[in-house]
Amino acid sequence: MSNLMARLADRHLTLPEPAAPVASYVPAVSVHSGAFVFISGQIPIKDGELLATGQVPTDVSVELAQACARQCVLNALAALQQEIGDLGRLRRVVRLGCFVAAPSDFIDHPKVANGASDLLLDLLDDDGKHARAAVGVPSLPLGVPVEIEFTFLVD
Amino acid sequence: MSNLMARLADRHLTLPEPAAPVASYVPAVSVHSGAFVFISGQIPIKDGELLATGQVPTDVSVELAQACARQCVLNALAALQQEIGDLGRLRRVVRLGCFVAAPSDFIDHPKVANGASDLLLDLLDDDGKHARAAVGVPSLPLGVPVEIEFTFLVD
Amino acid sequence: MSNLMARLADRHLTLPEPAAPVASYVPAVSVHSGAFVFISGQIPIKDGELLATGQVPTDVSVELAQACARQCVLNALAALQQEIGDLGRLRRVVRLGCFVAAPSDFIDHPKVANGASDLLLDLLDDDGKHARAAVGVPSLPLGVPVEIEFTFLVD
Repeated sequence: MSNLMARLADRHLTLPEPAAPVASYVPAVSVHSGAFVFISGQIPIKDGELLATGQVPTDVSVELAQACARQCVLNALAALQQEIGDLGRLRRVVRLGCFVAAPSDFIDHPKVANGASDLLLDLLDDDGKHARAAVGVPSLPLGVPVEIEFTFLVD
Repeated sequence: MSNLMARLADRHLTLPEPAAPVASYVPAVSVHSGAFVFISGQIPIKDGELLATGQVPTDVSVELAQACARQCVLNALAALQQEIGDLGRLRRVVRLGCFVAAPSDFIDHPKVANGASDLLLDLLDDDGKHARAAVGVPSLPLGVPVEIEFTFLVD
Repeated sequence: MSNLMARLADRHLTLPEPAAPVASYVPAVSVHSGAFVFISGQIPIKDGELLATGQVPTDVSVELAQACARQCVLNALAALQQEIGDLGRLRRVVRLGCFVAAPSDFIDHPKVANGASDLLLDLLDDDGKHARAAVGVPSLPLGVPVEIEFTFLVD
């Protein structure tokens, strides 16, 4: 038994069954080798136009916010392609940091972030499975409802 | 003198004495080799029940929020164990991203996050010393008061 | 054509031209080798005094918040120097996570974060170019208007 397990037992602490994630991502991603690419926080801008502005769900519906999250993915992949040249070098989506502009009583951040996570899974199968944090924020740059930063692993 | 130090001097900028962290974590963590495990944002759920919902300190006391932070640690260790099999492979806790649901006049995010940091130090001694960011947010998934994401280093 | 590109085409999704970042940072940073140093969230404290408290722009002007962001950089470099001994070992600024205390109608988080980004570029030229996420939050530890966490690459 590892020292950590012994200490947990000594303190009468038990590790739970790993909770199933409440959305379409995975609890943990291991990275043993390869190169990281860190992508700056992406906002839902397309052809120079913001897809939406304001908070979810008061100004922006959850469905529109999901579309915004999808656009963040496309913008991130474009930034990645520019950085590494060939998207065939993408090995794994490692982490998403999802920020949703929302009031204090909003609880559906995972639904919004799933717009991004589901698209990554659809495009990349197991290579698209990532760790994720999704949180509310009062405001984001330019007033957008969603901002997502990405960490990728590449060959 | 490095070029950076020369430029700092040229711009009449001086590096301060490193500030002692305001809580039970360390200013910096170096990672020279090993494998990273990124753990998704953990929420204070135990046996399928949320430990609390709402903002700190209005709906949830700082003490209860600290207990929530501790549960996030246990859930993260469970996710890590599922990922790597043997927690004896854990070499270092690298980083915590702590999000505390709180109003605009709350200032005690470090106290809440210490619920997680203190437990990690208690369980892992020096291997548990981590870098940390703790910030307020208006809302979190399912209405929980605390969400924490983790980066671990493993053998 | 990679499988990813094929799937994008199959789903009638096109990658945009990579958007120019809205501020003084870069869309992507690649890390192929070297050691990471993770710096805890830095707050604008100097000589034991907070430079400001409150939200931007209501309590703290954008200009003062930029000065706060600059102080976070100096504090981070001090923590890095303490960790690695010689700042000449710094190879690349990898990532900044910038949190700005602000109300729901604030949109100029990038301007605030530029206080940090511009200083890093001024001090380090290309080595200072980093990925960045900048978001609003209702509150930060001790009531400060800006908190920034850093990831550095060192030799």
